[in-house]
Amino acid sequence: MAHLLSTSFSIKISSSNRPFGQPLNQVRATLPNSFTIKTSKLPFKRLVSKGDRERKSCVVLATAAPVSKEVSANPRSGSDGSSSDSWKPQRVMVIGGDGYCGWATALHLSNKGYEVAIVDSLVRRLMDHQLGLDSLTPISSIHNRLRCWKAITGKTIELYIGDICDFEFLSETFNSFEPDAVVHFGEQRSAPYSMIDRSRAVFTQKNNVIGTLNVLFAIKEFREQCHLVKLGTMGEYGTPNIDIEEGYITITHNGRTDTLPYPKQASSFYHLSKVHDSNNIAFTCKAWGIRATDLNQGVVYGVKTDETSMHEQLCNRLDYDGVFGTALNRFCVQAAVGHPLTVYGKGGQTRGYLDIRDTVQCVELAIANPAKPGEFRVFNQFTEQFSVNELSSLVTKAGKKLGLDVQTISMPNPRVEAEEHYYNAKHTKLIELGLEPHLLSDSLLDSLLNFAIEFKDRVDTKQIMPSVSWKKIGVKPHTVPAN
Amino acid sequence: MAHLLSTSFSIKISSSNRPFGQPLNQVRATLPNSFTIKTSKLPFKRLVSKGDRERKSCVVLATAAPVSKEVSANPRSGSDGSSSDSWKPQRVMVIGGDGYCGWATALHLSNKGYEVAIVDSLVRRLMDHQLGLDSLTPISSIHNRLRCWKAITGKTIELYIGDICDFEFLSETFNSFEPDAVVHFGEQRSAPYSMIDRSRAVFTQKNNVIGTLNVLFAIKEFREQCHLVKLGTMGEYGTPNIDIEEGYITITHNGRTDTLPYPKQASSFYHLSKVHDSNNIAFTCKAWGIRATDLNQGVVYGVKTDETSMHEQLCNRLDYDGVFGTALNRFCVQAAVGHPLTVYGKGGQTRGYLDIRDTVQCVELAIANPAKPGEFRVFNQFTEQFSVNELSSLVTKAGKKLGLDVQTISMPNPRVEAEEHYYNAKHTKLIELGLEPHLLSDSLLDSLLNFAIEFKDRVDTKQIMPSVSWKKIGVKPHTVPAN
Repeated sequence: MAHLLSTSFSIKISSSNRPFGQPLNQVRATLPNSFTIKTSKLPFKRLVSKGDRERKSCVVLATAAPVSKEVSANPRSGSDGSSSDSWKPQRVMVIGGDGYCGWATALHLSNKGYEVAIVDSLVRRLMDHQLGLDSLTPISSIHNRLRCWKAITGKTIELYIGDICDFEFLSETFNSFEPDAVVHFGEQRSAPYSMIDRSRAVFTQKNNVIGTLNVLFAIKEFREQCHLVKLGTMGEYGTPNIDIEEGYITITHNGRTDTLPYPKQASSFYHLSKVHDSNNIAFTCKAWGIRATDLNQGVVYGVKTDETSMHEQLCNRLDYDGVFGTALNRFCVQAAVGHPLTVYGKGGQTRGYLDIRDTVQCVELAIANPAKPGEFRVFNQFTEQFSVNELSSLVTKAGKKLGLDVQTISMPNPRVEAEEHYYNAKHTKLIELGLEPHLLSDSLLDSLLNFAIEFKDRVDTKQIMPSVSWKKIGVKPHTVPAN
Repeated sequence: MAHLLSTSFSIKISSSNRPFGQPLNQVRATLPNSFTIKTSKLPFKRLVSKGDRERKSCVVLATAAPVSKEVSANPRSGSDGSSSDSWKPQRVMVIGGDGYCGWATALHLSNKGYEVAIVDSLVRRLMDHQLGLDSLTPISSIHNRLRCWKAITGKTIELYIGDICDFEFLSETFNSFEPDAVVHFGEQRSAPYSMIDRSRAVFTQKNNVIGTLNVLFAIKEFREQCHLVKLGTMGEYGTPNIDIEEGYITITHNGRTDTLPYPKQASSFYHLSKVHDSNNIAFTCKAWGIRATDLNQGVVYGVKTDETSMHEQLCNRLDYDGVFGTALNRFCVQAAVGHPLTVYGKGGQTRGYLDIRDTVQCVELAIANPAKPGEFRVFNQFTEQFSVNELSSLVTKAGKKLGLDVQTISMPNPRVEAEEHYYNAKHTKLIELGLEPHLLSDSLLDSLLNFAIEFKDRVDTKQIMPSVSWKKIGVKPHTVPAN
């Protein structure tokens, strides 16, 4: 059972920027008004009560006056669902906001002036416990993180702890927070995790697909103009022998032409779950007029953003293990501790990569420039392509500058994937919206390596080697690694 | 909780045709042997005990001697997974074998000499109860059906009642029956049902996706040479403006060429679940070497097959309601009771159709000509294309011959779909394997209409109109129809 916890903050701020709120006929004007004004920018706030029932009443009361004002002021809130290009979303719900990309994104959006709520079940922390893994960096509890953020910036990030697969919980978050945009990172995001055993494969697909279905239904039911910004993955495309376009491809076949969804060839139960999501979202855009942006993200590297660097309690996680660690981050940690870089197979596997500072920038650009009602927009979210061999060379070179003797070992590929292949993926749409990429430079690699060296005493070398095999996955429940 | 019931037959027949059985080191030769021989054709049989533990022991014992013989005789059972074209599958598990297509298929395969087991949770019967619906034809319980089949033909069809989403149950069926082929009809198969409300949408995707994942894992774990024959749907493709190919399309793009999965544009949570399945299956063929055939079936019409016609207790179901009824069957029932034919929207919606006698033929062809290990083969399983308007004209004409005054009404389309569109779908692969189509002739329509007239007193006209809307689906649990 998921549970809706009030956070350790006793006050939550309810912004007046709610252009499409609860129907006005739900306002219960006869209840006593109990609000105080805190700042001139945020005229209303409400006390958060711990009981769901009371909370609901509070939400309705708090929005009564401001909603009626905003409704007339904002054309998008009209019952015809018409949109206005001048409308700017203000209230952003970040599902999975305690994770690697989610945490950095939530802080970035809060820093940029958005009202932010994090929705998270914290299951990612549980997985580390269950698998005996840990982040390279020590990370604070979500409560301490948010307390710290408030203390440093004066900004409140609301927190809803629970599982979005529980629709009752998700409804409560929507009706309480009333988001203009939902950024959905709230999925099991590791390909190896999904290939550990049958129960993890099933968990991954059930969790990801049902969670996203619930978000779509919540938007339809409660906030139909809310923009869904969904994290997909470049891995959905696989490695076709033709250029990868952004979501769609125009095909001429037997003398006729159509623009169709780009064919997908995912290669893990995790990647497949993202394909399922994309298909489900595309349908609801067409059938219900949902506005959605699918961000097919490449492999993210780096750990620091402007916001997570502000205080050690805001520090982001950095995974280097065989289950959650991704190529470049993993190599830097390996180099720091003198472990050979682990190249799987021939190392010709080429993918799109991006700096985590670009992840947060891309998500903000998507939010600030929302999809139109009914539009299913797909952006390929990465900035550069590298093969695994190219990455290992770069890390070797950077390590040498720091006096590290970096070795590379080729090991049997635990995955089923092409190890030498054509790869050319388009990624212009986010650039067109204004993305200014942080390309992988020597100095970035130096700083990432230095960061890894700083925390190298925390490295558990037993976590480094791949422990999950695409071919050996079975039905017997499996704990990884079994130390 | 799913439960594994022994059927009302106290004896089950265990065929010796088990070319790839349990590893021999699992044989527990010290347990007492308690088998008797019944026929010269089937040298071993086993007593079925009701306890799972005992049953498991029995299974292992029963297969001990025959497996060791078959292993050396059949090249496909070698540990290298090599195949032989001369190998013919004998033992077919029909998941969903109590349903419309599943029942007809199970009898057809049994009649053709295959050893057949039906695996079914009987949830389709429960859905009728819950929604207040009923088949036009009275259908017997699965136990009576199988008793009748045995009495008429002397052939036994094994029965496993339970839910394939329960992996423990599914494992038991695999280890007990040891299929050479699995025909998988065991999914929620109605687009309107999946669009009733959130909980049915979620149920449909969870049930279909997890059930199929479990089947894939069961094959990998217990019967890795077993051929999966999976029922997909032509609806996965949607209505692209180019010719629809069979599963794959060769695309030349920016000077390079690749053959990729045909782009899918499904338009209900049900159709989407089948797309998810197809993607999952394709991955396991590549990663694990699963052999699979995806039968993208068109709309099935008709009710009688050679086998279901043998006795009234073998009669198949015929759905005419707004949730489970499909176009042509529904029109015939409407004509029989003097209800106007209900054309949704403009009626230009064009789809592939086939006679249920061709469904059973196609499945048998797929089984008799299995996919190779690692092959994900896609066949479009239909014989003719019709628009809804063409079907209503055909039924009107056929009705006139029988003295029926058939009217047609156009009603607002409850679905979200193109009502006028290009449609040209290939369907040659099953023909190449030997399919001899039963095309929709006047005489077939006459007989289907006469059949509908025979049972017209059982029609509940309140079930006829569409009660589910693609746009109005919500989160509130909904009972359809609410009489």
